[in-house]
Amino acid sequence: MRFKLIVEYDGSDYHGWQIQPNGPTIQQTLEAAVARFTGETVRVAAAGRTDSGVHAAGQVVSFAVQVARAPEVVQRALNALTPRDISITAVTAVADDFDPRRAARSRMYVYRIWNARWPSPFWRRYAWHVARPLDTEAMRAAAIALMGEHDFSAFQAADCDADNPVRRVLRSELERREPLITYTVEATAFLRHMVRNIVGTLVEVGSGERSADDLPGLLASCDRTQAGPTAPAAGLCLQRVSY
Amino acid sequence: MRFKLIVEYDGSDYHGWQIQPNGPTIQQTLEAAVARFTGETVRVAAAGRTDSGVHAAGQVVSFAVQVARAPEVVQRALNALTPRDISITAVTAVADDFDPRRAARSRMYVYRIWNARWPSPFWRRYAWHVARPLDTEAMRAAAIALMGEHDFSAFQAADCDADNPVRRVLRSELERREPLITYTVEATAFLRHMVRNIVGTLVEVGSGERSADDLPGLLASCDRTQAGPTAPAAGLCLQRVSY
Repeated sequence: MRFKLIVEYDGSDYHGWQIQPNGPTIQQTLEAAVARFTGETVRVAAAGRTDSGVHAAGQVVSFAVQVARAPEVVQRALNALTPRDISITAVTAVADDFDPRRAARSRMYVYRIWNARWPSPFWRRYAWHVARPLDTEAMRAAAIALMGEHDFSAFQAADCDADNPVRRVLRSELERREPLITYTVEATAFLRHMVRNIVGTLVEVGSGERSADDLPGLLASCDRTQAGPTAPAAGLCLQRVSY
Repeated sequence: MRFKLIVEYDGSDYHGWQIQPNGPTIQQTLEAAVARFTGETVRVAAAGRTDSGVHAAGQVVSFAVQVARAPEVVQRALNALTPRDISITAVTAVADDFDPRRAARSRMYVYRIWNARWPSPFWRRYAWHVARPLDTEAMRAAAIALMGEHDFSAFQAADCDADNPVRRVLRSELERREPLITYTVEATAFLRHMVRNIVGTLVEVGSGERSADDLPGLLASCDRTQAGPTAPAAGLCLQRVSY
């Protein structure tokens, strides 16, 4: 019997999604909870492998167990067995062959920037503090230039192992609610560090270090060294996965 | 030379405002920063002595130093010398006799309730998780009954040493943005635990355990044992102090 979970987490104290030796990960914490609940050793798969310090409001996770159980029971048990920075907001039964990564049609990420002179104690875990004033109109113009299908090599991490760097961006929007800037980007899929590299570049545009008109040329260059720096992990949140 | 500071803090990791032996406090952290910056041992005073775990978005703090300095320099130095969960958002020079507590005309607190079946990883430090559905219309009716001048003995902590339990409530409002309920209360001054005891009572009203019509009688009783339990500290934030 296979389950699909919607999972929210504050990634601040985790070394990302995927199991690794350096420290606790979301995957490892969920697998431990499932093992404690079911007595079975299972592998849990996610729609997106979030990096260290990255959050999720709508990560999609799936796993299969031998013994059938009501989704409602699974949800209650896993919420009781996970720490307070992980919450399972929905559980449904799905087909045996459901793969949360392959089946996903699109992912939506949100990146938050706290654009004020002084950092916020309340947003320090969930937003990048940028003290210099940012021109959000210029950033918005640059964000729009990313819409559509492009080779995103210029925004791909050096260690990204994607065969094909072409992605289709369905949404690329910037909203400002003083002093918080929220960048929302939805695409069929993302390359490693793609959102954070885009945000690093948008902040250069907002600071006047780069023109919004540069974006088409930057995409065409397919050259990572031409784009801006990688924005910090804390501002990033996997908001939703669509199927 | 005397300064007035507006201070924001995430109180999660502090034993409240006031210096005490059990653990770090906001007052102690600020006094240490001032001492490091000026080399002077000063006492810093606050408009409101927030309890352990309570936050502030607009605490007002004041201290005097022997050597004159530009407010701008004081702000930059103190922000550099305080941890990331404390931020000084404004500094101005004030008259020598300014007392942030006595001079305050009113204080405004905000209390947040996360009213959803499952807790939120992102709001766990800043809101009280109440899983059962709450009737916000009934809570709003109860909140309105607190407006005006009343003897608030029924909402006063047992160890509160106020001479006079009469307070004037200027604002008592409830707003719901699914699934977050925000209660805003402004008064000339507050008794110890007054906001948290009010919120504990409002949640009883929202749960149907108590009628909104009970509030006038509860106030008239002046009996703490008649009111609801003290709501958790994490949901409370000192939002603003007016002079």
